[in-house]
Amino acid sequence: MSGFVSFVGSGPGDPELLTLKAVDRLGKADAVLFDDLSSGPILAHARPDADLVGVGKRAGRPSPKQDHVSRLLVDYAQTGAHVVRLKSGDGGLFGRLEEELVALRAAGIGYEIIPGIPSAVAAAAAAGIPLTRRLTARRVQFVTGHDISGKLPPDLNLPALADPQATTVVFMGKRTFPLLLDALEAHGLPRSTPALMAESVSTPEQRLTRATMGELAERLAEEVGTAPALILYGPLAEFSDD
Amino acid sequence: MSGFVSFVGSGPGDPELLTLKAVDRLGKADAVLFDDLSSGPILAHARPDADLVGVGKRAGRPSPKQDHVSRLLVDYAQTGAHVVRLKSGDGGLFGRLEEELVALRAAGIGYEIIPGIPSAVAAAAAAGIPLTRRLTARRVQFVTGHDISGKLPPDLNLPALADPQATTVVFMGKRTFPLLLDALEAHGLPRSTPALMAESVSTPEQRLTRATMGELAERLAEEVGTAPALILYGPLAEFSDD
Repeated sequence: MSGFVSFVGSGPGDPELLTLKAVDRLGKADAVLFDDLSSGPILAHARPDADLVGVGKRAGRPSPKQDHVSRLLVDYAQTGAHVVRLKSGDGGLFGRLEEELVALRAAGIGYEIIPGIPSAVAAAAAAGIPLTRRLTARRVQFVTGHDISGKLPPDLNLPALADPQATTVVFMGKRTFPLLLDALEAHGLPRSTPALMAESVSTPEQRLTRATMGELAERLAEEVGTAPALILYGPLAEFSDD
Repeated sequence: MSGFVSFVGSGPGDPELLTLKAVDRLGKADAVLFDDLSSGPILAHARPDADLVGVGKRAGRPSPKQDHVSRLLVDYAQTGAHVVRLKSGDGGLFGRLEEELVALRAAGIGYEIIPGIPSAVAAAAAAGIPLTRRLTARRVQFVTGHDISGKLPPDLNLPALADPQATTVVFMGKRTFPLLLDALEAHGLPRSTPALMAESVSTPEQRLTRATMGELAERLAEEVGTAPALILYGPLAEFSDD
């Protein structure tokens, strides 16, 4: 008996940012495996008798349990269940989707991938910031600010990230931002570059902080807090609703 | 009398990839201004008595009519209407959102921005490709393959785009791809780098082509076709459902 897995991007948190396809799959699932950031009202779309299984991955923290999640996913599917694997944002963006796909393939279990609204895209929309601009921001890039140990990844492409003509969004990078900025400054990016920090995007706790990169690094060196956050920087970061 | 504009990302084309919020705003709109790629069944969510106005922007073609679109948007809103400005994918990504925001601000008209599923994210999901991977693809970047005149932009950050440790998605770049590849090769990216071309993503006409960048450039030098397309390349492009 072989089940089926729908990987579903749940978007940044606002249940209204689910896609119609995500709602459909949630309503059909026998079991839903969800991250902390894709819980709450989003799960109200699941059937009352569905198994709801929190797998406890928090953005910004290393997860030692990826193997365990993959095994759980395979185990559920092998009971013949239709499983929804809910991942916050879009599963393909820093969601460690690959490990779970590889596990399902090895077990011969079918799956589909339903994209979700990336948190970076929702953060820009919330702040009224377009991610691209003709002539001065033709390129947009997303990067993770920490590696598996929680440190700044040692092999970042710093010249690419120091490009003043791009919009850059750093995922899970609050703690390492002061260090990252020092490295970017060494590659020519001014500390006066405009930045936006977006915490708990699209939720009732959403907080947007506009500052220069230097100011933001100073604040984060003092206090990081626990809210999941994105840091966007580049010429468009100062484009504001005000 | 002052109206209100909801910028709504319609996603890549599949009407099931609309968000609940997009459906809500379409159902409330007095007028919907839409691009060619966000038409069809998506517009079925609008009220029967809403004005549906095609503004005819096609991905991959220069649009001489941006000023006209902005003026139309302001004119509709100034009648007191709730206007939905539907943009394919996510409006903030190569959607020329900024020009329209600036026009609304100048006219003192309120607006909100509702993010949509970016076509690049949907293309990767359709192909079963994660956009990021720990260690070997920590960075993902989106870039446009043409400037306002339809040519390869002269000021691309080629070293950043030739990074073999990133996933890159080129929007509207079929015609200029052979030229882009020559430039990337000069910066060290091998022609054997895996690539995926995704045409008409998430629609019944969707076509996915897997090839090396060199093979893809040869094909595109011979024939480009008219379907809107994304080209994704990097180590993850060969990660496949097969």
